[in-house]
Amino acid sequence: MVDLHNDERLDYLLAENLRIIQSPSVFAFSLDTVLLSRFVYVPIQKGNLIDLCTGNGVIPLLLSTRTKGNITGIEIQERIFDMAKRSVEYNDLNQQINIVHGNILDMPKLLGHGKYDVVTCNPPYFPTPETSEKNKNEHLAIARHEIFCTLEDVVRVSSQLARPGAKVAFVHRPGRLLDIITLMRAYRLEPKRLQFVYPKEGKEANTLLIEGIKDGKPDLKILPPLVVYDKNGEYTKEVHTILYGDS
Amino acid sequence: MVDLHNDERLDYLLAENLRIIQSPSVFAFSLDTVLLSRFVYVPIQKGNLIDLCTGNGVIPLLLSTRTKGNITGIEIQERIFDMAKRSVEYNDLNQQINIVHGNILDMPKLLGHGKYDVVTCNPPYFPTPETSEKNKNEHLAIARHEIFCTLEDVVRVSSQLARPGAKVAFVHRPGRLLDIITLMRAYRLEPKRLQFVYPKEGKEANTLLIEGIKDGKPDLKILPPLVVYDKNGEYTKEVHTILYGDS
Repeated sequence: MVDLHNDERLDYLLAENLRIIQSPSVFAFSLDTVLLSRFVYVPIQKGNLIDLCTGNGVIPLLLSTRTKGNITGIEIQERIFDMAKRSVEYNDLNQQINIVHGNILDMPKLLGHGKYDVVTCNPPYFPTPETSEKNKNEHLAIARHEIFCTLEDVVRVSSQLARPGAKVAFVHRPGRLLDIITLMRAYRLEPKRLQFVYPKEGKEANTLLIEGIKDGKPDLKILPPLVVYDKNGEYTKEVHTILYGDS
Repeated sequence: MVDLHNDERLDYLLAENLRIIQSPSVFAFSLDTVLLSRFVYVPIQKGNLIDLCTGNGVIPLLLSTRTKGNITGIEIQERIFDMAKRSVEYNDLNQQINIVHGNILDMPKLLGHGKYDVVTCNPPYFPTPETSEKNKNEHLAIARHEIFCTLEDVVRVSSQLARPGAKVAFVHRPGRLLDIITLMRAYRLEPKRLQFVYPKEGKEANTLLIEGIKDGKPDLKILPPLVVYDKNGEYTKEVHTILYGDS
């Protein structure tokens, strides 16, 4: 059983035998987040993984299908943290996933420096706007705008949490590519794998996936492009497989 | 008539009604160069364009089909400069194209700072190797290795030659993406358009095309991927059109 509050739904989590609590007015996960959870390297048998700005916990839930390691998710908004926690409980994953309520800026001190093998984050994409332009829904505004953490905060904290050799992966908008690369290098996360996601053939990329290695050597690979929709507006075979498996 | 020396050939220049002098032992242009000449923005009616490390002049020749502006090509190797000059003469383009023999490092002083609307360069891709590993063919070694100019030299000189608002475009290897972006920003060439070239579907990119604007505002677009060969090893339709036109 699960307590659902207000307009919350218990959705199926794509190809996996998982369910996740979502709410249109508070938080629902995006394709970007799913792509990040499939893009990042993970150790299969063990290790410590951490997802910053975890929202309703979709990345920890999806990562749990790829690794036996311990997964931590950090969420600053209590209302959304609570959704993530209930989803973990519903899926009986309390042994593997620990959702922490708090500010990512406090985590290196709380959880320790250099303790994690994998760090992921789908950070807020947009600079903090003027009050007048801000999303009036506070939950959505915090998830989308750099209100509680800037991109630099995310990269710095990720680097602090990562052990040397750890994989650190982000998803972001292509317009921030230069910033994210500059920041990653500044905080000793050497970019190694970069993939662009295109909404359709012939369109500009609207998403980037990037993975760096803490204290890694320079050697960046540009992975094959990922195209989301085909000419008929259906998911391409590749994205369909990512979302729903091979069947 | 044209004087051809040693193993030089008078090749057709792809789709254009142009001919170009090439030599397998001295210099032959690459697909990368052709892609750069099609990638870069050019003013149609007038303007000053300059191509650094011009080799046998393929970029000036191809740009002459896209603009009525004045085009300058700079080549440090006298033997190859001479090929470029003879190709320009053969195509009767002396009024539009001026090939200069010299070191790009001297050009801002010789030709003036901030005088160009468009700067292109297909620079040497590889760091200068140990003597033992260097290409024994000196002509090819200079074209391929950073012997006479580093990537930083290329970016700095390009910025010096460019007027504010000018377009500056390079082609390079994806492994140098971080360097080229960092250098462009350091020398006030804000990256605006970035395109990756993939040899085949499903393979990593092996070439990048990047264009910046001198003193431009940050706003990077990732153009649709360019795939060179199809599954049968033939040029894709898109690349065939770039090379040979629509016919």
